[in-house]
Amino acid sequence: MTMIPNVLAERYATEPMKAIWSAEGRIVLEREFWIAVMKGQRDLGLDIPEEAIAAYESVKDQVDAQSIMDRERITRHDVKARIEEFCDLAGHEQIHKGMTSRDLTENVEQLQVFRSLGVIHTKVVAALARMKKHSVTWRDLFITARTHNVAAQPTTFGKRIAMFGEDLLVALEQLDHLIETYPVRGLKGAVGTQLDQLSLFDNDAEKVDQLEQRVMEHLGIKRRWTNVGQVYPRSLDTTTVSVLLALASGPSSFAKTLRLMAGHETASEGFAKGQTGSSAMPHKMNSRSCERVNGFHTILQGYLSMGAALAGDQWNEGDVSCSVVRRVMLPDAFFAIDGLLETFITILDQMDAYPAVIERENAYYLPFLMTTTIMMEAVKNGVGRETAHKAIKEHAVGTVNDLRVGKITSNDLLDRLAGDDRLGLSREQLDAILAGGQDKIGAAKAQLDTFVATVDKLVADNPNAAAYEPGAIL
Amino acid sequence: MTMIPNVLAERYATEPMKAIWSAEGRIVLEREFWIAVMKGQRDLGLDIPEEAIAAYESVKDQVDAQSIMDRERITRHDVKARIEEFCDLAGHEQIHKGMTSRDLTENVEQLQVFRSLGVIHTKVVAALARMKKHSVTWRDLFITARTHNVAAQPTTFGKRIAMFGEDLLVALEQLDHLIETYPVRGLKGAVGTQLDQLSLFDNDAEKVDQLEQRVMEHLGIKRRWTNVGQVYPRSLDTTTVSVLLALASGPSSFAKTLRLMAGHETASEGFAKGQTGSSAMPHKMNSRSCERVNGFHTILQGYLSMGAALAGDQWNEGDVSCSVVRRVMLPDAFFAIDGLLETFITILDQMDAYPAVIERENAYYLPFLMTTTIMMEAVKNGVGRETAHKAIKEHAVGTVNDLRVGKITSNDLLDRLAGDDRLGLSREQLDAILAGGQDKIGAAKAQLDTFVATVDKLVADNPNAAAYEPGAIL
Amino acid sequence: MTMIPNVLAERYATEPMKAIWSAEGRIVLEREFWIAVMKGQRDLGLDIPEEAIAAYESVKDQVDAQSIMDRERITRHDVKARIEEFCDLAGHEQIHKGMTSRDLTENVEQLQVFRSLGVIHTKVVAALARMKKHSVTWRDLFITARTHNVAAQPTTFGKRIAMFGEDLLVALEQLDHLIETYPVRGLKGAVGTQLDQLSLFDNDAEKVDQLEQRVMEHLGIKRRWTNVGQVYPRSLDTTTVSVLLALASGPSSFAKTLRLMAGHETASEGFAKGQTGSSAMPHKMNSRSCERVNGFHTILQGYLSMGAALAGDQWNEGDVSCSVVRRVMLPDAFFAIDGLLETFITILDQMDAYPAVIERENAYYLPFLMTTTIMMEAVKNGVGRETAHKAIKEHAVGTVNDLRVGKITSNDLLDRLAGDDRLGLSREQLDAILAGGQDKIGAAKAQLDTFVATVDKLVADNPNAAAYEPGAIL
Amino acid sequence: MTMIPNVLAERYATEPMKAIWSAEGRIVLEREFWIAVMKGQRDLGLDIPEEAIAAYESVKDQVDAQSIMDRERITRHDVKARIEEFCDLAGHEQIHKGMTSRDLTENVEQLQVFRSLGVIHTKVVAALARMKKHSVTWRDLFITARTHNVAAQPTTFGKRIAMFGEDLLVALEQLDHLIETYPVRGLKGAVGTQLDQLSLFDNDAEKVDQLEQRVMEHLGIKRRWTNVGQVYPRSLDTTTVSVLLALASGPSSFAKTLRLMAGHETASEGFAKGQTGSSAMPHKMNSRSCERVNGFHTILQGYLSMGAALAGDQWNEGDVSCSVVRRVMLPDAFFAIDGLLETFITILDQMDAYPAVIERENAYYLPFLMTTTIMMEAVKNGVGRETAHKAIKEHAVGTVNDLRVGKITSNDLLDRLAGDDRLGLSREQLDAILAGGQDKIGAAKAQLDTFVATVDKLVADNPNAAAYEPGAIL
Repeated sequence: MTMIPNVLAERYATEPMKAIWSAEGRIVLEREFWIAVMKGQRDLGLDIPEEAIAAYESVKDQVDAQSIMDRERITRHDVKARIEEFCDLAGHEQIHKGMTSRDLTENVEQLQVFRSLGVIHTKVVAALARMKKHSVTWRDLFITARTHNVAAQPTTFGKRIAMFGEDLLVALEQLDHLIETYPVRGLKGAVGTQLDQLSLFDNDAEKVDQLEQRVMEHLGIKRRWTNVGQVYPRSLDTTTVSVLLALASGPSSFAKTLRLMAGHETASEGFAKGQTGSSAMPHKMNSRSCERVNGFHTILQGYLSMGAALAGDQWNEGDVSCSVVRRVMLPDAFFAIDGLLETFITILDQMDAYPAVIERENAYYLPFLMTTTIMMEAVKNGVGRETAHKAIKEHAVGTVNDLRVGKITSNDLLDRLAGDDRLGLSREQLDAILAGGQDKIGAAKAQLDTFVATVDKLVADNPNAAAYEPGAIL
Repeated sequence: MTMIPNVLAERYATEPMKAIWSAEGRIVLEREFWIAVMKGQRDLGLDIPEEAIAAYESVKDQVDAQSIMDRERITRHDVKARIEEFCDLAGHEQIHKGMTSRDLTENVEQLQVFRSLGVIHTKVVAALARMKKHSVTWRDLFITARTHNVAAQPTTFGKRIAMFGEDLLVALEQLDHLIETYPVRGLKGAVGTQLDQLSLFDNDAEKVDQLEQRVMEHLGIKRRWTNVGQVYPRSLDTTTVSVLLALASGPSSFAKTLRLMAGHETASEGFAKGQTGSSAMPHKMNSRSCERVNGFHTILQGYLSMGAALAGDQWNEGDVSCSVVRRVMLPDAFFAIDGLLETFITILDQMDAYPAVIERENAYYLPFLMTTTIMMEAVKNGVGRETAHKAIKEHAVGTVNDLRVGKITSNDLLDRLAGDDRLGLSREQLDAILAGGQDKIGAAKAQLDTFVATVDKLVADNPNAAAYEPGAIL
Repeated sequence: MTMIPNVLAERYATEPMKAIWSAEGRIVLEREFWIAVMKGQRDLGLDIPEEAIAAYESVKDQVDAQSIMDRERITRHDVKARIEEFCDLAGHEQIHKGMTSRDLTENVEQLQVFRSLGVIHTKVVAALARMKKHSVTWRDLFITARTHNVAAQPTTFGKRIAMFGEDLLVALEQLDHLIETYPVRGLKGAVGTQLDQLSLFDNDAEKVDQLEQRVMEHLGIKRRWTNVGQVYPRSLDTTTVSVLLALASGPSSFAKTLRLMAGHETASEGFAKGQTGSSAMPHKMNSRSCERVNGFHTILQGYLSMGAALAGDQWNEGDVSCSVVRRVMLPDAFFAIDGLLETFITILDQMDAYPAVIERENAYYLPFLMTTTIMMEAVKNGVGRETAHKAIKEHAVGTVNDLRVGKITSNDLLDRLAGDDRLGLSREQLDAILAGGQDKIGAAKAQLDTFVATVDKLVADNPNAAAYEPGAIL
Repeated sequence: MTMIPNVLAERYATEPMKAIWSAEGRIVLEREFWIAVMKGQRDLGLDIPEEAIAAYESVKDQVDAQSIMDRERITRHDVKARIEEFCDLAGHEQIHKGMTSRDLTENVEQLQVFRSLGVIHTKVVAALARMKKHSVTWRDLFITARTHNVAAQPTTFGKRIAMFGEDLLVALEQLDHLIETYPVRGLKGAVGTQLDQLSLFDNDAEKVDQLEQRVMEHLGIKRRWTNVGQVYPRSLDTTTVSVLLALASGPSSFAKTLRLMAGHETASEGFAKGQTGSSAMPHKMNSRSCERVNGFHTILQGYLSMGAALAGDQWNEGDVSCSVVRRVMLPDAFFAIDGLLETFITILDQMDAYPAVIERENAYYLPFLMTTTIMMEAVKNGVGRETAHKAIKEHAVGTVNDLRVGKITSNDLLDRLAGDDRLGLSREQLDAILAGGQDKIGAAKAQLDTFVATVDKLVADNPNAAAYEPGAIL
């Protein structure tokens, strides 16, 4: 029998994320959940022998996926197969009391989601710490900002990085909010009325409530749904994937921009340690990793589309029409964002900027970018506004046309302006204005300093997260 | 020239929402924004004559869309066209100082989004108030809960409504969070560095900051971006549409379930006042409005798909590749959710349940739902567990088969069980058990009471919202 | 190291589909492709020793995925790793001449897609053959057609099935068209200009063309692209997934309708051989498989969303931003449609209808559905049209209201009409009209006969496909 | 009352497309449809007075949208409102005989779709004719092809255009196929059984068939569905939007590439006649229109997402849950593709390439691209392969590094190689090799010639389409 691995997990995701979503990992989570419920039930008065609990605990890590699958092929019921397996291993029948399948699966799947959110949180902080570092490093690196992909006004490379960083920061707030408010379904029974737990506890609602609280403590989730059916509303899953997509936005825009910069050789995602370009094409530093980040973003769009189709589609108290979708969408969306962040952090660790090339680009465009200032100076010198405007326009258009048709190969606008009596500006004056262009970055540095301060606080609050080191990527 | 109206706006959305997004409404918002900036600049020291401000204010409501469009067809620049129009009307040239087009459009569009969120908030509260009312009304209406669309366990109709209500409540929290944390772009200039405002104020960063704070006060938005480019990150738009979709989830699931119930005639969306079914088909209460709610949900999926494609696609400091998408997606998503909520509230105002039909359904299924209890009673009476199980299974399967092949037309399981000596249960005992089935709704009522209490608090905090009355729907 | 399987492949897809997409299967396809190119190059004049070809052929099935992955982790280049592995195994370096990575991967991936389309074709025919069979079996089974989920007019169950079948038939035409016109990229080189093959063959364009034709013969694909870059346009992938979604439409609508019918117990997806309902709930035939079909449809929407985002996003001659997306989307979309069709065929093999329950439903609604005819008969008898209309409306509304409030439990409209002198129709006359209702199915049978004839021809053309038997599903 | 226009229609779509989808246009289409059915019924034997037909025909163009909307607000039934309006105008009640609402609306909407497909077909041919022209013009313009956005191998600009053109050509085949095979629903009645038409014609199936054929002739659509319910399968709508998206792919990739080229100033979308860059920034030719094309592509993704959610969601014989979605999706998808093609054709009419800049780029990269050839020449000269490789790598890496750190500003690799005795190649030899680089475009020209020939044939078959001139865009 052929075995097809999950390509997102196997090529891109990391061990901790895979551990959460592995068949074996999930089975252990389920068994721990059953044991937690069982202990809670015992503490609240049900007659469950201590030895049974001990027996279950002693075998909880003995996971034989094949045996379980064999059972499922007979029963055509996945949870029943896993109950039988666990009970046979333990030699007792004390788990799953008053529980329906969804009392197990919904809670355990939510735990998987919740823990995955934590893993992602760490990596987002790690990415932001690196973005901050670069923002500081290139705080003063004067670059030509582009709008419509065309030179517009100056900024600094540090500010550009902070810009994408702030996108990610705002998405991180969404992640924080989701983690803080994430509600778990709890033990609600077949149609959500808690009938079976209430029956177990002779309709003692207080005890059932306490049992559910224990479950929440076990899961580490602080909030729960009250009114649900067989399932919790799938809008929660949509929101989850939506937050993952928001987290992908900043890195994806950053990656697109780095791909563009690589095209101009002003920056690149760099090489892995020891890697070199081919001898034939040493200039060819392919933005493979950046392209991959963009690919992950596209993948997340697809999973969000699945999630959006699940929400708002509950029939009565629910069914399993969402089951196969969630089996795919939830782990795969987390594998994708995990892979995206690993790739993104690696890019941040290896990327480089090429100040000399950047400077050439600046030199090419700066005279154009300074024409407004030049005109103001000419006017200050007593030249008529209309005259100045006319002269400058004439030379600017001439320069750009000559550059495009190949008459000239570098921007000689200042020469032309210096040679035009109408403006009355000397070459020295014009050079001074051009030199002053370096100051035309407005509040860029102050802005990025704000980003830096915010991330510094975040890093101080999450020191381990910030120190996270990614694995080697393919 | 043919004029195509926006079908979502014209057929489904309400006047307040349309006013926010109308061309005229937007132009007034823009002019008010320009005036606010102009006043701020004057207060902070720029030389702007009082009479100019007065002139702009006096003409700000004179909107001639055709004249503006004519200008745009010449300039091929929409903002320039609107500047010229406003200045010509006022007879001054004092607006838009140090501003780039995006300093106007981004902020005004965000204001449109922000106000629309407020409109939607009101309607969500109004819907929840009605769901609460129904939940109370039908608190004790015993119904057969369904999983996989098949009878499962008892619940109450009030609980079922509370279930969809809680989905909406959790989505409302997301809306609240978005409104509270929504950041506006502010006056950041062509590439985000605030260069031009800083130039205007001789690099006095403090003054530029104060100007931006004034802008925020004018908009009524408490938070702003710091590091942006020409545009704010489009992930914010994605998040906005994502929240709208989350708000649609509860109503959409409710609508699907009501469509299902209408198929069984246990409930229906009812008729408008004075409307009656056709004489030929008086039973045919088509769930047109519920179907429409589901249609709106699908539409929102499409807009979310557009939004998801915009995020993570920023090239350098930005461009207008998102422009046409946002012109469509933002208003249309709000028109869709507005129409959805209007329709949903109307459904809530007109819907009805049919207890007699519900009771027939209960009677049909209840004996099956009570077999576990019957077995337990037989065992209490001294019958062997295996014997009881065998007898009950025999009769249950027999009954269902006879119902399906038409041998019988109503559920006679109790007769069969009463007539079987193996169980030793009298007809009276069995009837008593069946009657007890009415108590098998677990915590349904307590759960819905929690929903009711939560909504009561919400309504107390938003009395006007709760009292909102929808317009007539098509 | 945890190993995460592809859940779509492992739980739902079949061995032949998995074989096409397995890592091992793909490596063999690649090696066969290299060998085919190598043989073509030799035949066209390149100096490639026969023993090298023999050596490659002798080791082509020796696939060691781990060894290849180890190589990739060093080279960070997947194709290079696979070249080295194959060459080391063969002890020669004769493959991949004049080829760039994409000359290998694009063609092999297209082959995977193309073969998968063939697998799917077979199953669609198999599904249609079964739909036809049911359409014939239930050709005359009179049912109450529903619009808006409410009883509308009569039809037959066979016609209902043919309706969903015709949806699938039209989608099958799309599949046929795609298979017939599917163009392969061929050996186009690094930027699509065939530079390297032309260099190999001293710019002999004729030979390069012949080599490409050989490649097409090897692949079994009749058409090729001429003008491409590094990659073929991704719109072809979008179209492919779009066709898969179209194929899912008929089955998905069928599955939804069967879920609805199960709620009314008029039909069900049935049980697997030997399976029975639980004793407690023998009525509970959960539509798990139908729900799963709907789930697969949702999944395909997500993959189509990914595909739609890839099209129209080619930068220059291409890059790998689509790579990770296609690694996920292409196999997973095929696994999903494969699983959908397996599940659908299984449903068709196990489903059942319950004529007695259907008849009860008909009896409940038929009097309402016949009121137009009754009025016409009354008018024929000389009663005034207005009078007749008034009387009938009165009784119809009365009946439906009494049913809803529980005054009556079966439809007694005919009794009421018979007892009303205004209409002048005897009970016998009314019974005759009602009996005539059985003929009010219009062209239902003739329509389904057309479907049957079309499928018969299809089956005759594809006898093996029609005879396809699905594997056991979970 | 505020009136919100459809932004896609009003800003971007053309009059012919708007006419098809306008409220007024649709009402006329409906009235023509009713008249066609009425005439058919009369010819087939129904008693319909000639004067009634004449009366309807005489008023069919008197469209009063407000009056109809007023009626709809009373009846809450759009079709009924339009029947009443038309009958009141004509003074007869002869239309809509034996028809249900969907017999009108489905067919008329399909006619709108079908005619829209024709409009789009024209524009696709027009776009291809222009792409062909450019491909010829720039057939020999040697450019540096880029993969991963980085210089890779030579090609020609004509070939690059043909590459995106072939994407569009293949999509055009899909459009052709859709137009040829597009099936109309016909007169199938309330649940698809044609009951009411059969009743009208005393169960004469032959006459009903003839009537439907007349309807098809009237519509100009050659194919029809046989087995449908109240509605035709919505998968047909999904396929329609999917084809529109495929058509958008080539233009969208072309637009992205032109945006990239504009960033390098190797090409631009140009200016409208008379338009000039601003004086301050004459270099700033913003790719606004290209960005818009990409925006339209994103919009179409959203509508495809809506369409994908409609397919496979039919409950029984159908309902109106798709209604609001189709009201939005169908016209808006056509407005979007119409706007996209208008914009794209305008770009093609105004775009320009800058050979001098292209040449500078080539000069910068060509030495790197020729290193393989240089090594081969050195080896021919008797230099050891290893020696040559080592020397070339040394200089290539040195050159690229010096360029990046700013030591040099133009590529001096050839100087370095000429100065290295190890290679034994004179400056003249190296220059000759470099000059030969101009021939390294492989089959680029032959490939584009194939594209040209295909489009020539297409243009010959569609002369009017090719001559289509777009309107002025905003």
